[in-house]
Amino acid sequence: MGSNNAGTVEIALVHYPVVNKTGETIGSAVTNLDLHDIARAAKTYGVDNYYIITPYEDQKQLVTEILNHWLKGHGAQYNPARKSALEIVTLSDSFEQVIETVKKNNDRKPTIITTSAKRTKKLISYNRCKKKIEEGESVLLLFGTAHGLAQPVLEMADNTLPPIDGVNGYNHLSVRSAVSIVLDRLLGTRD
Amino acid sequence: MGSNNAGTVEIALVHYPVVNKTGETIGSAVTNLDLHDIARAAKTYGVDNYYIITPYEDQKQLVTEILNHWLKGHGAQYNPARKSALEIVTLSDSFEQVIETVKKNNDRKPTIITTSAKRTKKLISYNRCKKKIEEGESVLLLFGTAHGLAQPVLEMADNTLPPIDGVNGYNHLSVRSAVSIVLDRLLGTRD
Repeated sequence: MGSNNAGTVEIALVHYPVVNKTGETIGSAVTNLDLHDIARAAKTYGVDNYYIITPYEDQKQLVTEILNHWLKGHGAQYNPARKSALEIVTLSDSFEQVIETVKKNNDRKPTIITTSAKRTKKLISYNRCKKKIEEGESVLLLFGTAHGLAQPVLEMADNTLPPIDGVNGYNHLSVRSAVSIVLDRLLGTRD
Repeated sequence: MGSNNAGTVEIALVHYPVVNKTGETIGSAVTNLDLHDIARAAKTYGVDNYYIITPYEDQKQLVTEILNHWLKGHGAQYNPARKSALEIVTLSDSFEQVIETVKKNNDRKPTIITTSAKRTKKLISYNRCKKKIEEGESVLLLFGTAHGLAQPVLEMADNTLPPIDGVNGYNHLSVRSAVSIVLDRLLGTRD
């Protein structure tokens, strides 16, 4: 990003607060592949920072161990491309903290955009959002784990992207697939 | 698929023959998450069949055990949405066998389209490929694991889709992300 006066795009994967199957607010566990797959997709599309949000010490410890292996340990020599993807990962305690960090880095509050598998209020189309980025807006995209972002996150957002509608109403993508598709829709160019 | 006289799209994940880091032909191991994430993305976009290609008995056994859990075992009750995604998975010994199966199911040879992180001959643009599908063509998309499809697979293909170009030349998406993005480009609709 940053070329042609385009805005910055940063992404965050939220492990708390999210909801479970029955709609209760929970904290989910970090998974190794969410780190890798999403960092690789983010790096591909020129995303500057990928925040992993979890308040839990054991989960932060796990993320730190994985990152150390690939950034400083054997993994860094074995697979430099993986190192350069995981270099954009930052651990954070809360979405409030991430917003503060992005605000500080950009000298202004980012436009906070959530994603949801359900249609919610404050919808912004993919094309409109793409245009905003091209016009120089700083955007923070929030993705939920488990069964999606909890109400307080959806409420503080400026906008929500429409669900990735499937054929025949099937709407159960992995968060890894959803992030990849959203980044391609907002930042991809295709022949 | 099948509505508005659109063609059928089927996908296959190739574990043999693929190449390793140094370009040698190898067989790769099946991973649990390639089954789940790609089946969920395929189901989302109305793909009729998702073929897992491996000639190895132990790998076929692993796939069968995973499928049994989610189609007939505890997983089927626990997560019916996952069941309906994994129902489209079919095991196959070779890409030749998959082509024969698709030919038999559709009463004609499918257009075989490979994907590659490198630019190859026989390129077809995403828009042209999307149009072909909309006009009724039957397409079989082949995706490689490890470091990509081996030469014999690329050679027998009718066309190859361009790599998913990133920003700054980073081009190391997971196959799970690549499949999701390719299906969205060929079959997705967006606001």
